[in-house]
Amino acid sequence: MNKLRIGIVGAGRIGNVHAESITYHIPEAEVVMVTDVIEESAKKLAERFGIPKYSGDYMDIIHDPDIDAVLVCSPTPTHADITIAALKAGKHVFCEKPVHTSLEKIREVAQAEKETGKKLQIGFNRRFDHNHKAVQRLAADGSLGKIELIKITSRDPEPPSPEYAASSGGLYIDMMIHDFDMAMFLAGSDVTEVYAMGTSLVDPRIGEAGDVDTAIVTLTFENGALGVIDNSRRAAYGYDQRVEAFGSLGMAADENDGDSTVRLSTAAGVVSEKPQFFFLERYMASFTEEMKQFIHAIVNDTEVPVGIHAGYMSVVLAKAAKKSLDEHRPVKIAEIL
Amino acid sequence: MNKLRIGIVGAGRIGNVHAESITYHIPEAEVVMVTDVIEESAKKLAERFGIPKYSGDYMDIIHDPDIDAVLVCSPTPTHADITIAALKAGKHVFCEKPVHTSLEKIREVAQAEKETGKKLQIGFNRRFDHNHKAVQRLAADGSLGKIELIKITSRDPEPPSPEYAASSGGLYIDMMIHDFDMAMFLAGSDVTEVYAMGTSLVDPRIGEAGDVDTAIVTLTFENGALGVIDNSRRAAYGYDQRVEAFGSLGMAADENDGDSTVRLSTAAGVVSEKPQFFFLERYMASFTEEMKQFIHAIVNDTEVPVGIHAGYMSVVLAKAAKKSLDEHRPVKIAEIL
Amino acid sequence: MNKLRIGIVGAGRIGNVHAESITYHIPEAEVVMVTDVIEESAKKLAERFGIPKYSGDYMDIIHDPDIDAVLVCSPTPTHADITIAALKAGKHVFCEKPVHTSLEKIREVAQAEKETGKKLQIGFNRRFDHNHKAVQRLAADGSLGKIELIKITSRDPEPPSPEYAASSGGLYIDMMIHDFDMAMFLAGSDVTEVYAMGTSLVDPRIGEAGDVDTAIVTLTFENGALGVIDNSRRAAYGYDQRVEAFGSLGMAADENDGDSTVRLSTAAGVVSEKPQFFFLERYMASFTEEMKQFIHAIVNDTEVPVGIHAGYMSVVLAKAAKKSLDEHRPVKIAEIL
Amino acid sequence: MNKLRIGIVGAGRIGNVHAESITYHIPEAEVVMVTDVIEESAKKLAERFGIPKYSGDYMDIIHDPDIDAVLVCSPTPTHADITIAALKAGKHVFCEKPVHTSLEKIREVAQAEKETGKKLQIGFNRRFDHNHKAVQRLAADGSLGKIELIKITSRDPEPPSPEYAASSGGLYIDMMIHDFDMAMFLAGSDVTEVYAMGTSLVDPRIGEAGDVDTAIVTLTFENGALGVIDNSRRAAYGYDQRVEAFGSLGMAADENDGDSTVRLSTAAGVVSEKPQFFFLERYMASFTEEMKQFIHAIVNDTEVPVGIHAGYMSVVLAKAAKKSLDEHRPVKIAEIL
Repeated sequence: MNKLRIGIVGAGRIGNVHAESITYHIPEAEVVMVTDVIEESAKKLAERFGIPKYSGDYMDIIHDPDIDAVLVCSPTPTHADITIAALKAGKHVFCEKPVHTSLEKIREVAQAEKETGKKLQIGFNRRFDHNHKAVQRLAADGSLGKIELIKITSRDPEPPSPEYAASSGGLYIDMMIHDFDMAMFLAGSDVTEVYAMGTSLVDPRIGEAGDVDTAIVTLTFENGALGVIDNSRRAAYGYDQRVEAFGSLGMAADENDGDSTVRLSTAAGVVSEKPQFFFLERYMASFTEEMKQFIHAIVNDTEVPVGIHAGYMSVVLAKAAKKSLDEHRPVKIAEIL
Repeated sequence: MNKLRIGIVGAGRIGNVHAESITYHIPEAEVVMVTDVIEESAKKLAERFGIPKYSGDYMDIIHDPDIDAVLVCSPTPTHADITIAALKAGKHVFCEKPVHTSLEKIREVAQAEKETGKKLQIGFNRRFDHNHKAVQRLAADGSLGKIELIKITSRDPEPPSPEYAASSGGLYIDMMIHDFDMAMFLAGSDVTEVYAMGTSLVDPRIGEAGDVDTAIVTLTFENGALGVIDNSRRAAYGYDQRVEAFGSLGMAADENDGDSTVRLSTAAGVVSEKPQFFFLERYMASFTEEMKQFIHAIVNDTEVPVGIHAGYMSVVLAKAAKKSLDEHRPVKIAEIL
Repeated sequence: MNKLRIGIVGAGRIGNVHAESITYHIPEAEVVMVTDVIEESAKKLAERFGIPKYSGDYMDIIHDPDIDAVLVCSPTPTHADITIAALKAGKHVFCEKPVHTSLEKIREVAQAEKETGKKLQIGFNRRFDHNHKAVQRLAADGSLGKIELIKITSRDPEPPSPEYAASSGGLYIDMMIHDFDMAMFLAGSDVTEVYAMGTSLVDPRIGEAGDVDTAIVTLTFENGALGVIDNSRRAAYGYDQRVEAFGSLGMAADENDGDSTVRLSTAAGVVSEKPQFFFLERYMASFTEEMKQFIHAIVNDTEVPVGIHAGYMSVVLAKAAKKSLDEHRPVKIAEIL
Repeated sequence: MNKLRIGIVGAGRIGNVHAESITYHIPEAEVVMVTDVIEESAKKLAERFGIPKYSGDYMDIIHDPDIDAVLVCSPTPTHADITIAALKAGKHVFCEKPVHTSLEKIREVAQAEKETGKKLQIGFNRRFDHNHKAVQRLAADGSLGKIELIKITSRDPEPPSPEYAASSGGLYIDMMIHDFDMAMFLAGSDVTEVYAMGTSLVDPRIGEAGDVDTAIVTLTFENGALGVIDNSRRAAYGYDQRVEAFGSLGMAADENDGDSTVRLSTAAGVVSEKPQFFFLERYMASFTEEMKQFIHAIVNDTEVPVGIHAGYMSVVLAKAAKKSLDEHRPVKIAEIL
């Protein structure tokens, strides 16, 4: 069998992550080109993984007839256009989240997917995490009965710079977007209404930049369940990633992963490991898994596990949350669509 | 030293709990009379604990010059009037929660306390629970830094009858009132705004009776922190009682108590104990501890640990939550006061 | 119904514990006399619990025709003689462990029990502990299949004085005796052979006094299972009390009890409570439970839960362990009997 | 930099594991040849990882002047001779455990290492496990004070066939050898005496074949500490791998790894994941880590992390344990050396 030939657009952190997954863990595929507007970055990634071609222009990937699939790992504002170009060039696409901050643009992406019939997967890697996935499985297979409550805690170890916060589109779309997707994934249902609280307690400069760093958002799901997400841009003890699903027959909840299971008992107390530091440590296996399933969906011509609907709805929720915060009232999703 | 002489009004479940604590665990006090509108109940409680006098009329306690303190354990609607009568008769009072569903009435109680200078403690026993108290201590002693988020989960093992739900004043004042008080206790701050979600997922008859059985309420605290409470009238796995305080330096969270620490590992999985069944099992020690501290405050003429302010604010929050649910918008506490 | 009338011989720590259990938690019984060679101690205990009579001579209990049962809480060397005298005076007896250090004496006690037909219970309170009892239940009810391995860890928070160690009869009979009994309780089988290791690592003066403070003893059970006990006289993190039973279908193991379930997560790590400090904190409920079952066995004329066989076999194992240490070889129980 | 060129002798399960580690995770090295007496197996491994050469004769590796290091993954009886041949051919060697069942042979290996000055590492992969390594680090860095007790539990999920058991050299050298090495690793000290118990409770045919399937072995360490290892060939709940180090300042202990941290709470109880199934699941990362450190020691000309002394002493302990079982007495290591 010929290997699936992959081109990666964007040689940053996440581009490297995907290149590593494919090179080392997915024998059915190979990365044949990488591009980055900073050509030197593309070159470095190519050398690191023995990728034959690199370039400063992503159109070299689009125009390369030998490339079967494109991973869009470039900055957010470029996701949609590159994805559309790649789809129209007959390539399957894996697009990082968020697809775009404009819903109109995301609808164009959806349209391109529909017209071309190519595979399009969105990069919500947390769905593939061993812990969260196990909770979702118990929610989906009936072990919990009818789902009634969803709770998600997601806290970063360290706040971003105020500059980053200002340019990121804000906490709801930059950080909580993962949790919006996770909430719908766990509930097995879309959201109909959002109420958002947000404040700046971590770094006043984030507040001055017009963003929040501490937030609670409540959700009403189509299936009648209620949900709540809490975010903080800084947890002194590390990257706090926990989900809980509660239903008529019981509850499934996960705990953070530490670097070991060791407990040290001394006169000072019983000490366990802190959560693993940040997303590259905590979620590495999930990045590999989402890529495996993307490749698998292409090779076997089956449905991708995370489609454009998830990419669209997560941005809708982020927008609804922002509107809720601004207008200090619950906001129906129908107001945003 | 002479023992403090106690009269108990109301010989129901909670009257028995307090009689047991005093008889067996508080040598500085003794129960000398118990009354109940069902005199037979008073008699039974008196016999069970060797209490010399019982009666069908609580005024027998009020008029007894030998009684130093009164425990008001009668039905909620009677709390305020009995408390006021006892205070005016020169007695210290321990009053079960909620003090009353009318804020006006609670203010009258506060006025009577002020005028008489007698001790008045409100029965928020969960503040004395070994787990929640330990979280609060870490929040109060600076271990967590500045408090930013408070999370409380409180789920009953079994739903009440629809009739009870209908007559209880509703979930927010009947069940979540404990959590409102706990939230302010943990945050070390009053609440300024409430947003309430509620629905009937457990038993449709509860919804038909005009109440909710599944609820999420978010809180904004005076000190800037945010909070969230989730309640369900039914958890298949038992009485779920967890709190979490998160601050600039870290997080303190507790887990449920089980009947043992045993884990059974078999081919079917690793099984631990469920949470202890309900409040009499789970919170018994806290009932004894609150009573000890009440007696202690009288004997040493120190401040009671839970005063009328807590009794008032918890009802205010319950009312704000109900208003928020009815009007589908965040409600400022100032609207209620 | 008349209450069962109890006399307590010995007003030390454990005499107080039992007096408290009966006074506060066992309505079917009452303590009517306490004696201690230090009469002042007896008086103090009597006052503390409102016991009508006290004395400096335990024969006052033996000769009191109104006393139904005697708790032997005096120093170890006197256990057997007082127990025999009480049995012969027609009284039921609860005797603290160890019954005696002479097997001949214990056989005399057994003989007296047989002749008089009175109830005789030995004070192995740990069998009534909520954790260990739950492990035993799973071993006994078949959940673990055929039992193959028993493991017990038992470590004190602080070493005794070298003087105490010297006079205590040594670690095996003073400390590990509880674990010998627990091992047979969990395995549901007596022991046929013992191999003992012991050394002095905690306090060299304990070694100089001829005792050990750190020990591992392995056991062969009649039913074919193997077992191991480890003891230390000092655990920096507190009183470490864990048992494990392993069988053909699985394993049951318990963990230490802490004062709360709270975990504090900070930059320094995730900290849980240490084990509860020592046996009075850790095992208080088990002392009450063993006394309840003793009273219950008398009142209902049923078998006591811990009979003289357990008292005898635990001392046999302690002696076998000492012999094994001295002779540096495995010792068959048959050599001791 | 040129990559270190590796030859693998033995294309079985462990040969595949090491080939995978080097191919995917160790850029400084590459596998250039694999051999197996079943040439087809060598071919398959070569194809799987894109290894250029394969053969049915390990001498093709020994004679290949381009090969820098050899991994000896062949059956145990051949380990020593191949290792010696490779060392004498000027190659660094990684040799799987046990090195040999004859101590004389292991001494010859040690002699060859000494004479050639080449690196020789023994495959005790568990030393590199994230959990056990963390316990060892706390033991070695003084966090636990002076080490006094070492406890190791090691139980396989399923028993081997009686045929395998018969040909394996017995439980002590086939299975417990890992634990002997771990015990010395954790204690930071060699062992001076062993007492072994063993029986056949899992499968009577294992007993009939002259082996044991359930065993407890106690250890005395040179530094005065005591230790105990328990093994079973079958744990219904999976691969049970736990270690504990106890010292004057405290204890470090690890727990099993599960596939997720999820707990499912239902009316049936609170269920967590079982331990990961077997060594390929549980210890995969440790195999990669030991290989990384082997390569690193060659590239940087530093000491290997696990030398021939560990390979020798572990076999000595296994022999001492067998002798102890046979002669039913504690056996000094000096009797074996």
